[in-house]
Amino acid sequence: MRATLMYGAGDVRVEDVPDSVIKQPTDALVRVTTSCICGSDLWPYGSMSPADGPARMGHEFIGIVEDTGSEVTTVKRGDLVVAPFAYSDGTCEFCREGLQTSCVHGAFWDVEPEEGGQAEAVRVPLADGTLVKLPVAADSALMPSLLTLSDVFGTGYHAAVAGGVNERTRVTVIGDGAVGLMAVLSAKRLGAEQIVLMGRHTARTDLGREFGATDVVSARGEEGITAVRELAGGHGTHVVLEAVGNMPAYEQALGVVRPGGVISRVGVPQYEEAPIGFGSLFGHNIRLAGGPAPARAYIEELMPDILDGTIEPGRVFDATTDLDGVPAGYQDMADRKSLKVLIKP
Amino acid sequence: MRATLMYGAGDVRVEDVPDSVIKQPTDALVRVTTSCICGSDLWPYGSMSPADGPARMGHEFIGIVEDTGSEVTTVKRGDLVVAPFAYSDGTCEFCREGLQTSCVHGAFWDVEPEEGGQAEAVRVPLADGTLVKLPVAADSALMPSLLTLSDVFGTGYHAAVAGGVNERTRVTVIGDGAVGLMAVLSAKRLGAEQIVLMGRHTARTDLGREFGATDVVSARGEEGITAVRELAGGHGTHVVLEAVGNMPAYEQALGVVRPGGVISRVGVPQYEEAPIGFGSLFGHNIRLAGGPAPARAYIEELMPDILDGTIEPGRVFDATTDLDGVPAGYQDMADRKSLKVLIKP
Repeated sequence: MRATLMYGAGDVRVEDVPDSVIKQPTDALVRVTTSCICGSDLWPYGSMSPADGPARMGHEFIGIVEDTGSEVTTVKRGDLVVAPFAYSDGTCEFCREGLQTSCVHGAFWDVEPEEGGQAEAVRVPLADGTLVKLPVAADSALMPSLLTLSDVFGTGYHAAVAGGVNERTRVTVIGDGAVGLMAVLSAKRLGAEQIVLMGRHTARTDLGREFGATDVVSARGEEGITAVRELAGGHGTHVVLEAVGNMPAYEQALGVVRPGGVISRVGVPQYEEAPIGFGSLFGHNIRLAGGPAPARAYIEELMPDILDGTIEPGRVFDATTDLDGVPAGYQDMADRKSLKVLIKP
Repeated sequence: MRATLMYGAGDVRVEDVPDSVIKQPTDALVRVTTSCICGSDLWPYGSMSPADGPARMGHEFIGIVEDTGSEVTTVKRGDLVVAPFAYSDGTCEFCREGLQTSCVHGAFWDVEPEEGGQAEAVRVPLADGTLVKLPVAADSALMPSLLTLSDVFGTGYHAAVAGGVNERTRVTVIGDGAVGLMAVLSAKRLGAEQIVLMGRHTARTDLGREFGATDVVSARGEEGITAVRELAGGHGTHVVLEAVGNMPAYEQALGVVRPGGVISRVGVPQYEEAPIGFGSLFGHNIRLAGGPAPARAYIEELMPDILDGTIEPGRVFDATTDLDGVPAGYQDMADRKSLKVLIKP
């Protein structure tokens, strides 16, 4: 079968690899029908050392179950399923609490060196806990939106939920990438009073307005902070959804969060240490929340709104390719020519 | 009148200073009947540069109103009142939300260079928003417990409230100082299922057990972390109340907090940067909460339990002095000979 491998920064290749097969009785083998490239794939695309490669890529996919291990009971051959970006057993104490990304038996896809979603097929561990059956056909026009349940929509929604967004909150969203736009859509869904989107790519912020942003601030740094604070009544917003992950985004968040407010991070931090002392978080009781989204926890909750057409998160996909086009898709996303690239293997 | 001044690290003096007087129509002049030395006073006592002194000390006091400005309506001459460690107007948007430490007109006492609680009298700005009348006489045996409402009890309680402690939470309290012990009492009051107190001073941890600690761990570092995690079922506790403020305490908190849990800090951070990336907070969705306690917000809520004898937070005071003994009181607290020193000016 064919799969995507990253050999190092800027070096993505699609190659023949051994077919994925069932190995554990809890596995399912899924023939991928739709997958995509993630904004988080761009971090290694920008910096990965060849010594860490080659790595199988992709953690968002929909596909048809082709085979199952002997213990799998919730999905069967022929089912169309969506997989979240981390697999989980569905039964441990963390899964039961909705924190599947901390499942005691689960993991992120990158611990499976021979599997990845940007491929023709994937062996899915812990299939019962991980996969969710989709009540549509594989050629449904809803496929792009349903695919966002595997990561970006769940991640944006997690930011909003972890940030405690409700109808009394003013919200700033930092980042106009796919996750940032999903955070806007999620804040809107939770009824936020005001949603200020910080971003400078007009096509993206325009989509953000359609998703529910009430204001757009393109300025960055002190100028951007001043603009957001003025829009939000002078003291900043109750909630900041940080959907980028680098230090400038964190500093921006510190600048626009209101005393007593919360910074909810879902952009994977590209830093370990950051300011949290009296002058940043502590002095005004600013809270920090977020982490890898337990996307699995939100699939059943978010799917109905997609199925009935209430929301269309799949609009974040602005390009489609087959596997051959994946390397160019990475480059287009890195160049900001594409917002998010859908893959039809 | 006489007041306490800190001239630098280790150099505390009680001196004659100009009498405090009403300056603003919103001021009250309070004759101090009971005050105390705070654990946070020990930070400058350990490190203050003489260039930053002399500084008036003390931010916890009870006293009798001696005079009021023309606009003060809620307290009058002769009232016995308690003051929280920050003054606030009681009317701004943050005060109305119970975040009086971020009051737009308020401040901590250290911005008032000529006032402090370790003195015979204090000019209290924004008296209507700040002071709370006590329904007892100044010689009541409840005085030590009522004084804890000005800071340490409110601070411990804030840690527990900000950490979301309830009857389903396991809690670790880091630090067996007065605030840590108040955090234990507060977690108990909120019904915590388990309260593990980390501390190594037996007299203090014994008091912690009386306040509600179910377990005491005296080990620190990796050994202490392992012990707490084992006590808490293997994954750490849902909530960590960090009542110290230095980096080892923060690192300890990271070690004992459960995935999806919260570190609630009320020890004033002696650091600005700290680990919050994937390997510390982010990877397991660990939240960070806390800050300076809006002690004013909790006074009415906590006072009844003191008045009816349900709780006795004043047991954290293990020494009493007059003003002359304040310098020795600082040294005794720094030497851990005293837990917390009450002052009867």
